[in-house]
Amino acid sequence: MISAEIVSTGTELLLGQSLNTNAQYLAERLAGLGVYCFFQTTVGDNPVRIRSVIEKALERADLVITTGGLGPTLDDLTKEVVAEIFGLPMERDPEVLARIEAFFRRRGRPMPENNIKQALIPAGARIIPNHLGTAPGIIVEAEGKTVILLPGPPFEMKPMFEETVAPYLADRTQVSPGVLHSKTLKVIGPGESVVEDHLRDLLQASNPTIALLAKTAEVHVRLTARATSVKEAEAMIAGEEAEIRRRLHPFVYGADEESIASVAGRLLAEQKRTLAAAESCTGGLISHLLTNVAGSSAYFLLGVTSYSNEAKAQVLGVDEAILRRHGAVSPETALAMARGARRLAGADVALAVTGIAGPGGGSEEKPVGLVYMALASQDKEEVEKLQFFGDRVTIKEKTAFTVLNRLRLYLTGEGGNADRPGEP
Amino acid sequence: MISAEIVSTGTELLLGQSLNTNAQYLAERLAGLGVYCFFQTTVGDNPVRIRSVIEKALERADLVITTGGLGPTLDDLTKEVVAEIFGLPMERDPEVLARIEAFFRRRGRPMPENNIKQALIPAGARIIPNHLGTAPGIIVEAEGKTVILLPGPPFEMKPMFEETVAPYLADRTQVSPGVLHSKTLKVIGPGESVVEDHLRDLLQASNPTIALLAKTAEVHVRLTARATSVKEAEAMIAGEEAEIRRRLHPFVYGADEESIASVAGRLLAEQKRTLAAAESCTGGLISHLLTNVAGSSAYFLLGVTSYSNEAKAQVLGVDEAILRRHGAVSPETALAMARGARRLAGADVALAVTGIAGPGGGSEEKPVGLVYMALASQDKEEVEKLQFFGDRVTIKEKTAFTVLNRLRLYLTGEGGNADRPGEP
Repeated sequence: MISAEIVSTGTELLLGQSLNTNAQYLAERLAGLGVYCFFQTTVGDNPVRIRSVIEKALERADLVITTGGLGPTLDDLTKEVVAEIFGLPMERDPEVLARIEAFFRRRGRPMPENNIKQALIPAGARIIPNHLGTAPGIIVEAEGKTVILLPGPPFEMKPMFEETVAPYLADRTQVSPGVLHSKTLKVIGPGESVVEDHLRDLLQASNPTIALLAKTAEVHVRLTARATSVKEAEAMIAGEEAEIRRRLHPFVYGADEESIASVAGRLLAEQKRTLAAAESCTGGLISHLLTNVAGSSAYFLLGVTSYSNEAKAQVLGVDEAILRRHGAVSPETALAMARGARRLAGADVALAVTGIAGPGGGSEEKPVGLVYMALASQDKEEVEKLQFFGDRVTIKEKTAFTVLNRLRLYLTGEGGNADRPGEP
Repeated sequence: MISAEIVSTGTELLLGQSLNTNAQYLAERLAGLGVYCFFQTTVGDNPVRIRSVIEKALERADLVITTGGLGPTLDDLTKEVVAEIFGLPMERDPEVLARIEAFFRRRGRPMPENNIKQALIPAGARIIPNHLGTAPGIIVEAEGKTVILLPGPPFEMKPMFEETVAPYLADRTQVSPGVLHSKTLKVIGPGESVVEDHLRDLLQASNPTIALLAKTAEVHVRLTARATSVKEAEAMIAGEEAEIRRRLHPFVYGADEESIASVAGRLLAEQKRTLAAAESCTGGLISHLLTNVAGSSAYFLLGVTSYSNEAKAQVLGVDEAILRRHGAVSPETALAMARGARRLAGADVALAVTGIAGPGGGSEEKPVGLVYMALASQDKEEVEKLQFFGDRVTIKEKTAFTVLNRLRLYLTGEGGNADRPGEP
């Protein structure tokens, strides 16, 4: 087994001026290649601190991958620090220099003096060609350790990793069995601790490991299996997945790239049914989520964000008497909105939500986060009262995801408005 | 001067399954508070490794801020590790327990056993209230060091940082000279390279520094000044800001927390005008962005996502002859949609967009990314043709931001549909 540590250099990362997407990219790829990564470290453009971080990384990992600090400027020092750590002299590489000169020739510009620095390579190191920039990557193997230096710009780093580093690591990891493969099951309804109650024993497992991740409106259950091949890992995951789906039934709506909107949309398409949505407190988010899915125009006909009472009455045809008697945030209004949207669009199914997203507008009997959602179809009409907590945007999100999940359960015929799985 | 280290915990980060946005957020805020941050470390949900990382961080920094590992589940261990490091017993905090119980009571659910764990606090630690979740944050001051523990979910972590941690650190840093203060100007219209052309000389400056950040539909110009006080830094920034706004006029729409929807909304409220929106290719995103702004119900009356031609005709009253003759994606349809939405809602101003978000549906003369946007009011009607590039969600976003910026320019009377600032 090979263990690795990712070291990101760049003062802009320490100041929070840029988001460290390189670390995520490398972490995901290393896992896929069966390389264990236990630590990620970020440090600024300071040679003393860069050295201390790389030395610490070399203590706890076989392989250190760095990004950043390979540029032509004075604060680009990663290469020099690594050479220093291993006591390697820097040698000018004529091939690299020729490539850099060609790079500038193609752009019809003279090569600045300081780019010559980029042709200096620690003695005995391998070159990782960079087709999109002037900084070559470098692989240093010394004292039983490996350091791989990559440039910071993602559009240079990623192709260099795929073209040279990934095959290099694949060779190395063949001796160490094991790829790491993951699948994420997505749950809407029960909260994180309820999900854990149901999976407690499974969470002890070590292969596949099972981890919970709480999102704003979902809980993700991530299964990660280590095996000698992806195929084998997938088989290991499949067994656990079936058990988890059974225990959390019917609240696992999908996996990995699926979203609640794409799953509900697929069901509508399969059943050749059309949809309309009438939104008050979600303010268009349900329509937005549905229409993020390619092909949604096949089943999604109409969304109405009826923010004013006039819009509810005149566009959706909600009886003004209902609005007067029960108020805009009421089960009666929610159902009338759903009926109105369905009629207006000539849709098979219509969803409606009305509620108080806050921060203002709440009262004793109608607090912020109170939401009524309704579903209307030819065979069924239902209204449900919900209470959410959080800021305005959070309440909008939780409401929209819950409503789309409600639609999914209606379309699969699993109904039930509980947010607790049937007790195991 | 206080030095800090950010420690992010979570196996999902090591596996590259989620992007570490917390570290960026904290890094940016710490810099703004004059806290120097030299290292960021990421570690998985493993108590031994978490301990080694926090101990190392305590060696090299006065202050350690952790995110993650405060949940109710078995792999949430950060709090326990920190208590162990300082030899502090864990004590059940009745107030915290009461808050957690109330949290579940409000949701009408029994509190799962495992949530009791979240009420265990290292002896003598301060509590950071969490209004959006059950995990309280914790401030431990011991052996001349400070450890601040925050939960992983950004929507819980950020408000806790702003409400409790930022003021706490501000008190501490008064003694430390030198604060780093930033302001971000937000630009919609010109692309990053056009902005760079106009600011080239300013980008050389060292204090304040000026950096460009390209977003999906915006360019952010970030000014960062180092001074002895926030007040002084703000004054240094103000000078540069005026010059940048002049050069990029009229495309700097706001700064920092402002969004194009909040700025356009504020103008509508100030001018006591109401708005309606008719959306096709944006599918509700414009309504969603507008209604993310608290108080938007004062001016936003109605949004219609007319995804089908029938909806365009029957709901918005678009003449079927127009749809037949010019097609759904045409300037004529866009204008008819805007007029229809304005009439339907009885609004002062209406926006409309119709286009091809893709990936399907494009043709030779009407390619993916082609969008017509219209604005209709009593005094003005205008239609504009736009061409965007990118995937479906990117095209939706670019369109929505452009349309809202168009509304802003109409409301400020700055009009003009150029995306290049007046040459400097």
